[in-house]
Amino acid sequence: MEKVNLLGEASKVADLWGRVTPLRFNDYDVHVNRIKGEYVWHSHADTDDVLMVLSGRMTVQLRTGDVELGPGDMVVVPAGVEHCPKADEETVIMCIEPRDTAPTGDA
Amino acid sequence: MEKVNLLGEASKVADLWGRVTPLRFNDYDVHVNRIKGEYVWHSHADTDDVLMVLSGRMTVQLRTGDVELGPGDMVVVPAGVEHCPKADEETVIMCIEPRDTAPTGDA
Repeated sequence: MEKVNLLGEASKVADLWGRVTPLRFNDYDVHVNRIKGEYVWHSHADTDDVLMVLSGRMTVQLRTGDVELGPGDMVVVPAGVEHCPKADEETVIMCIEPRDTAPTGDA
Repeated sequence: MEKVNLLGEASKVADLWGRVTPLRFNDYDVHVNRIKGEYVWHSHADTDDVLMVLSGRMTVQLRTGDVELGPGDMVVVPAGVEHCPKADEETVIMCIEPRDTAPTGDA
């Protein structure tokens, strides 16, 4: 059983919007993503999406408005809700999803 | 959809070893616990246990040795593995468990 410093994992992410998966629990993955710029609008039909900022700032764009996250902020995007993450500066986030969830969603 | 600052939730925890549950995803709870001292040895037969330090320091005591966690460190205690959290100073942690998991375990 190894502890993982989540922010420290960011250095292993080669490309922006890439990720590593340092931990797993039950049938879930804990991902660390390095992001900058705008992702794609997507949703996950069958799972909520857990997003937490570890460093930097992220805007979770929703069709109903934006949610702004700083370090230590977490949001749960409900299943089926379209969203598009965006970061003006390089930002590191943790993302928790069921194993094998497509990062770009399924809708 | 509201963002939550996990560390900020700690002020809502009245008692040491108490917790609040600011977020839920799928059939999981995201708890924030305020801890100091030693908890009880316990295990969860049917679920892994996700523990992350938000501030302070925590020792996850295991029968095989200790794991020391500082801010941003996360560990997954596998199902069935006996553990006993301990904190010399007041510490705030996040804990992710399936809804209705007993904090003191089932074994």
